[in-house]
Amino acid sequence: MKVLSQNTAFGGMQGVFQHQSEACNSEMTFAVFVPPQAIAEKRPVLWYLSGLTCTHQNVMDKGEYRRMAAELGLIIVCPDTSPRGDDVADEMTNWQMGKGAGFYLDATQKPWSDHYRMYSYVTEELPALIAENFRVDMDRQGIFGHSMGGHGAMTIALKTPERFKSCSAFAPIVAPSTADWSAPAFEKYLGSDRALWRAYDACALVEDGARFPEFLIDQGKADSFLDNGLRPWLFEEAVKDTDIGLTLRLHERYDHSYYFISTFMDDHLRWHAERLS
Amino acid sequence: MKVLSQNTAFGGMQGVFQHQSEACNSEMTFAVFVPPQAIAEKRPVLWYLSGLTCTHQNVMDKGEYRRMAAELGLIIVCPDTSPRGDDVADEMTNWQMGKGAGFYLDATQKPWSDHYRMYSYVTEELPALIAENFRVDMDRQGIFGHSMGGHGAMTIALKTPERFKSCSAFAPIVAPSTADWSAPAFEKYLGSDRALWRAYDACALVEDGARFPEFLIDQGKADSFLDNGLRPWLFEEAVKDTDIGLTLRLHERYDHSYYFISTFMDDHLRWHAERLS
Repeated sequence: MKVLSQNTAFGGMQGVFQHQSEACNSEMTFAVFVPPQAIAEKRPVLWYLSGLTCTHQNVMDKGEYRRMAAELGLIIVCPDTSPRGDDVADEMTNWQMGKGAGFYLDATQKPWSDHYRMYSYVTEELPALIAENFRVDMDRQGIFGHSMGGHGAMTIALKTPERFKSCSAFAPIVAPSTADWSAPAFEKYLGSDRALWRAYDACALVEDGARFPEFLIDQGKADSFLDNGLRPWLFEEAVKDTDIGLTLRLHERYDHSYYFISTFMDDHLRWHAERLS
Repeated sequence: MKVLSQNTAFGGMQGVFQHQSEACNSEMTFAVFVPPQAIAEKRPVLWYLSGLTCTHQNVMDKGEYRRMAAELGLIIVCPDTSPRGDDVADEMTNWQMGKGAGFYLDATQKPWSDHYRMYSYVTEELPALIAENFRVDMDRQGIFGHSMGGHGAMTIALKTPERFKSCSAFAPIVAPSTADWSAPAFEKYLGSDRALWRAYDACALVEDGARFPEFLIDQGKADSFLDNGLRPWLFEEAVKDTDIGLTLRLHERYDHSYYFISTFMDDHLRWHAERLS
């Protein structure tokens, strides 16, 4: 693991690290914020998964999570959104496919399957690396994310509920296998058998019996992707007759940007801290 | 005035605007955060001046000022750091001169004097535009900034104390006319007569009799520019036998970055709000 940068912030440390990923067969970069409390003791770890076109850096620059994470004593890990490098397949002019658009799944179709194994990366390889290198209490993990990363957080929580005590999302893609803007990527990554796409779709997972105690979702009503890509009402519908708790908050005037995310970041960090302590 | 973007954040609005500047003879971009309180009433305005290489955008992305500004009801205006455009003189390979390095002065030397009139821009033209277009209480203005922008804030407060009720700085260049990294720019902008440089140097201004009630300065001790460029102890020395108040705080482990700025942003906003209300 190589240290790319380390900066003191809010009494803690914001670091950026790089390592050779076996899962993705590529060099991967990720960010970790270590709160001051983690000098003395193991602290809970909260995973933040980013949206389409992002890297680890967008939320690090614009997410405004450090002040509250330092106050609550949360370690925040922010992975990249896809494998990177010259030998990694891509669709240069398509922001919904390839680099920056890994959709937190393990691709099965060539050429994507050579590198696009973000599900394994985020659920197995990176947690092992984090556990080895930081003062984290791996029995207290939460996960959240934005847009494609909200999809990632919710599907990962539903698929591995034993690992997480909390999950939340900003403007998540709750049903990517049926959304115009993500279904084409699912076909390229996973093949034409739509039944296989359900393993990476929060609504389908719930329909197929997956469970997680409760979710917090914030969604801006001025989000231009609301009707075609995000559709949180589908998740509301999916959990209706289950024991899954859902706090869905719709906000007038807020869009899809980090201005929206940063506004509600404190609420999400508190949501997780309550369930991780 | 052209609207480049407007996003809802923390109940208020973060906007980016462009206009043709007469002072700089160039198109200029600036950011304004309007807190929710400014819908109902005129609010105090706080000017943030950015450092070398920055535009209006760095602090907008990384400064983390919106949450507290919304709480305190402060309008935050963030100008660019120099004129821009293809016809504006520049030294492309020198980050301490030309574009991104206007030093908040009015250049007198060709070719710089054609556009580099940031002092007039920030003290006259932009305030008039802001007063005309936003619900600002121009009787309640504060000013702060980072590095070169800390220099800008302190010199402008000292030169126009009647305009401001408060001034603070993050890692300011307190004596740019004698610092290795800024003196060459001063010579190009202002000519070889060093006596004329004193009008844009906080320490020299105080020595020459300029006064402002009090300053707050935060400075990281791990800041790599501390000894050659910033030297806050020179300002401490300059105000020693005056009635100017100085709160100078040195912080272990903090560097020159926005990780440092964002950490102490809340403190600065509170400092200003106390003096503006």
